[in-house]
Parts: sequence; structure tokens; C-alpha cells
Amino acid sequence: MQVYNFSAGPAMLPADVMAIARDEFCDFRQTGSGLIELSHRGPEFTAVIDRAVANIRELMGLTDDHAVTFIQGGASLQFAMVPMNLMLPGGFAEYADTGSWSSKAMKEAKLFGEVRTVASSKEAKYTHIPDVSAWAMDPAASYLHITSNNTIFGTQYHAFPEAPTPLVADMSSDIMSKVIDASKFGLIYAGAQKNIGPSGLTLVVVHRDLLGMAPLTIPTVMDYAVMAENGSMLNTPPTYGIYIAGLVFRWLKAKGGLSAMERQNITKAGLLYDCLDSTGFYGSPVARENRSRMNVPFTLHDATLDEAFLKGAKERGLVQLKGHRSVGGMRASIYNAMPVEGVQALVDYMKEFEKTKG
Amino acid sequence: MQVYNFSAGPAMLPADVMAIARDEFCDFRQTGSGLIELSHRGPEFTAVIDRAVANIRELMGLTDDHAVTFIQGGASLQFAMVPMNLMLPGGFAEYADTGSWSSKAMKEAKLFGEVRTVASSKEAKYTHIPDVSAWAMDPAASYLHITSNNTIFGTQYHAFPEAPTPLVADMSSDIMSKVIDASKFGLIYAGAQKNIGPSGLTLVVVHRDLLGMAPLTIPTVMDYAVMAENGSMLNTPPTYGIYIAGLVFRWLKAKGGLSAMERQNITKAGLLYDCLDSTGFYGSPVARENRSRMNVPFTLHDATLDEAFLKGAKERGLVQLKGHRSVGGMRASIYNAMPVEGVQALVDYMKEFEKTKG
Repeated sequence: MQVYNFSAGPAMLPADVMAIARDEFCDFRQTGSGLIELSHRGPEFTAVIDRAVANIRELMGLTDDHAVTFIQGGASLQFAMVPMNLMLPGGFAEYADTGSWSSKAMKEAKLFGEVRTVASSKEAKYTHIPDVSAWAMDPAASYLHITSNNTIFGTQYHAFPEAPTPLVADMSSDIMSKVIDASKFGLIYAGAQKNIGPSGLTLVVVHRDLLGMAPLTIPTVMDYAVMAENGSMLNTPPTYGIYIAGLVFRWLKAKGGLSAMERQNITKAGLLYDCLDSTGFYGSPVARENRSRMNVPFTLHDATLDEAFLKGAKERGLVQLKGHRSVGGMRASIYNAMPVEGVQALVDYMKEFEKTKG
Repeated sequence: MQVYNFSAGPAMLPADVMAIARDEFCDFRQTGSGLIELSHRGPEFTAVIDRAVANIRELMGLTDDHAVTFIQGGASLQFAMVPMNLMLPGGFAEYADTGSWSSKAMKEAKLFGEVRTVASSKEAKYTHIPDVSAWAMDPAASYLHITSNNTIFGTQYHAFPEAPTPLVADMSSDIMSKVIDASKFGLIYAGAQKNIGPSGLTLVVVHRDLLGMAPLTIPTVMDYAVMAENGSMLNTPPTYGIYIAGLVFRWLKAKGGLSAMERQNITKAGLLYDCLDSTGFYGSPVARENRSRMNVPFTLHDATLDEAFLKGAKERGLVQLKGHRSVGGMRASIYNAMPVEGVQALVDYMKEFEKTKG
């Protein structure tokens, strides 16, 4: 049975990527070893990481103003690394609070400096993104931090604030899902396990102007300048994760790059939201103008049907649709790797379920 | 051709583990998804990590006094985490300097507190381990740090110091290669990429008495107490690395556990050292009583033959034998996953090469 995995992360990878990785798992390009077994200093892996970085630059349209690094520890370690590296002594940073992960980033930053809330949708239970054109941003802040897509609540920035300070974005759940103007960002970070690859790998794109500001008391592997200078190889990087991410980047290029991906993501999200909007049987809690194209939370009007919905979905190979434990209901995560056919299969099932139970 | 990969890390994995991982790469236990694509909160991965932890406990003979955690960032992040978590305010820590990685650990610890050298073989170019029975250890130290096996220089502790303070060991390159009395250790850490699994995963075994000492200004994911309390799942762990490590633990158990592994490692190292000792054509710089069973550096008496040696080895499928760039010569890393046949093939080749060129 064809299975479509709607997990919020770790999430499905492109079927083509999985097939290549399986085929060369035990013998990477006639070496007689798997890539997972090869030295990070050898020519095979060096070629893999160099190609991955070049493809990130090409896909995201990065100039040499930005350094590209791979770091371990997930977005959660970035919550600390960002203030440890970028908070100016005695300074403060501005944060927009648009969901659970924003709140966690703020909580962590408070360990290292003053955090000011520039905008918040907390009172509205995070069902929208505060209008960025109305934010009163302070040019004296060390940086402005946003979470570009909120995995749990299903909201997404479709326009970014015109920040007078370095704009720092946690893009874990929508990195490379659409075209952005990277030149507007001081730092972009993303845990790989949603749109890029396996967990255990974090992509950090950082403007070179922001390097070298960290105080001496930061762990060496947490200093962006050191990691950039050493091409992410100060110590052994997560080689297998970088290899899989590299296959994903190649796949993205073959698919037409981020503009093609954006069109497909608009199509996929449109299929689902049209279905939700066409009936009272299902509902979406999210403000229309901030709907995420990556994570679509939805509810059944009659929550007693939730279990039957999930059971029927699973029988059709539509899995991991249960909503996050903090909000309940359903959630369909439809990252780059989810094909249109998968979303169509979900929509077909939703209509069928409504017809039977509605 | 059968390839034997003598890389120092990332290193070869057991052939059985590689075959299982390949076979279930795209479809993990009838889920229709690869393990690499599955949520860390789902029942499949939860079973994987729980089993992995249980097997570590069984293999290493750990009681509930020790917590078992998986952390990202490699041994290099542990170089910082150990002092950040364990250095008492205004206190100092003792370090034994027995190689490049010990020195790096000391350099990093100095960022966070006072470091005192309890023993050093630096003057002797790290070719031995200072006799532990002669160390003058201070009971007032926050902890004592050692590097149990020195990957680059090929030395290994065959007895451990009787420390009056918590004994902290970087066991990256000999973890699970022999039976140890884990109750004597306050903290053991090991980057996975030598004896356990892929890079990007660090095993940390920590005595519960040492938890909860970290000051408030430590990043949350770097607090051992928090990681232990959350079963390594405060944030998304490196799921695929944990899965592969779990397969390695199962394989270790099937092979008879660490005592069987120790016997095999003694056999393997014996084959190589006997070969080195039987001739003047090859040489070993390491003190006999501290020879490593994991990493065997050796030289050709006539260094102009190095290239020919490596070329001939590669033609026979014996790869990654070039010594570390800082010491030159050759190095054969023969971790758990290297079968006796691989070492025998290397020894056969060395004798043949000597006969031809000697």
C-alpha cells in the first residue's frame, strides 16, 4: 500500500531520495563502504558537503555575504546560540511571540540577555501572525527574532518585517519551501527534520557581518565564526545527515528549485484549505491571511469522530494526522516532500468521511 | 572485492548492521516509511530508543545510579558541557594530558574554570600514558578528566586511576570495546562514530549524584539533568543515529557482549603488534604497556615506501590506512566492527610487502 506520512517532523523524505540512499547504503560510489562509514576528511565526504553547500547557495540565492554552516543540536540549541553570539553586551533583543517555539526561543534567550516582545499573538491563542507593518521595532536592539512558520499552530509569515536590526529567523518548518529574499536576513536557522533531511542536523545561514561578535566564554563549537571558518568541520559533523540533505537539495534543483516548489506548495495547501472551507463538517482555527502552507491543523466539528477519522485514514495509508498534543484535533504536515497525490488522497478521504458520517 | 575500512572515524559498522539498515531503509517494520522519516514521539521510535538504552545498561552493567543520555555535538561539545555542568563555583578540575583530544578538552575547560594538569605525556610526544598509580590527585577537585584511548597516538589506559573525585572519561574511541567497572565513573562520554554508530550522536552516561549542579546560565539542552529527566527527548534527538547505534548494541549482545568483544579485540590487536614486533621493517612509536587495541599507528622504517604501501593496500581492499596528518606514517583503526579476517588480511599484506620491498 502507498503510505503518505503527514508527520510534522521527522517527516517524509522525497521517495526518489529514499531510493537512492537505500541503493547506495552499503556501497557509496564503488568505495565498498557506506557513506555513513567514511571519514569526514576523505575525498568522498568532502565532495558531498561541498556540493551540499553550493546547492544551498544556488537554491536560496545566497551571495558570499552569507556563510553556510551545519551545526548539531537542533533549533533548541540555536535558541541559546543566537543570543550567546549576537546579543551585544548590556543590550537587548526583540522577539515576536507567535507560538510555542517562539516562546521557547524567548525563554532561552532570557538566560543570556534582555528580551523584549515586539509583537505577540499569545492572547489570541496563536491563531494569527501580528501584522508586521504595525510593529514598533527599536533600532537599538541587537537583533529581531521571528519564527517564520509555526508548526503547531499552523500559521506562517507571508511577508517579513522591515527590521532596522539584523533579522533572525527560525525557519525550521518552512525553509526552502518558497522563494525568499535572503539578503534581508542576518541569520536563518532550521532544524533539518522537516523540509531538509534527518533530525540531528541544523542549517545555519549567517551574514558575515555578524561573525566574530561572540564573547570568549562561549563553547568553541557554538561560535558561528569558528564554525564558518572551519567549513562546519571543526569537529566531526553529522555526515550522514548532511549526505541525505545533499540528496534533497539535488532533488529540489531537479524539480525546478524553490519557485517550482512554492507553486506546488500553494497548490497542495489550496487543495486542503478549499476542502476545509467548503463545509462546516471540518474547521480551521487559523486566520486566513496567515494560514501555513506547511502545517494545516484542522478539527472535526464533532470531536467524538476523531478516532474514527484517524482509523479510517490509517487504513488508506494516510498516517500521522493526529494534531499536536497541545492543541488536539488533526494536523496535516505537507512539506516539500509530500506529493500533490498525497494531499489529494487526504482530501478525497476527508470528503468520503464527511459523506459517511456528516 | 571485500573492502576493509580502517578509518579512525566515522568508521566501519558491522556488516550485519549495514545489511539490516539497508533492507529496512524505506520500510521500517511495515510502516511504509523509513525510520529516518518517523516522528520521534511515535511508538516505533520510542521503542527503538527505549531498547537502545536498555541494551546500553545491560552491555555496560549500569545500575540505576547512572543516567543514560544521547546528546548532539560530539565529544567537542562535551569538552564544554563537562565543566559547564560539573565545575564547582570557584573550583578547579584535574586533567590528564595524554594526546590531542585531551589537550583540546583542557583548552575548552579553561574557558569555564581552572584546569590543573594531574599528569602529562606531552613531553614524550604522547607515546605513553603516565602511570596512574603515581598520580597525586587532589580530593578538592571538582572532577578528574581522562581520555581513555588516544585515537591519534595509539595509547590506551589498561588501568584507571583510583580518583578521590568524580572520574570523567572521554571514551569516544574505546567505548564498549572491553569490560569496565562503570561504577567507578562519574561521567562517561563518547562520540558515536568510532565504536557505536554514525557521527552526530554522543552517548553520555552520568552518575545521578552529578545531576542538577549546573548554574542557571547554561543552555537548556546542555544541562545533563534536563536531558536525563527528559529521556534525551527535550527536543528532537538524532533519531537515525540512535537507530543505527541500537542495531550495533543488538549485534554486540548477539556476539556475546563486551567480554567476548574484549577477547576478540585482544586477538586482533595481538595479530598486528606481533607483526610489528617481528621485524625491523615496521615500527611502533608507542610504549608497549600502553598500546591501544583500537588504533594502531605504525611506521615503515623507510618512509619513502609509504605511498607504495598505501597503493598496494588499496588494491587489496585495505583502505584508510594513512596515519593522522599530525603524526604521519600509518594507522590501522580496528574497532569492534573490524572482523579478525580484516586484521589478518592486513597482516598478510604487510608481510608480503616486506618480502617484496624489504
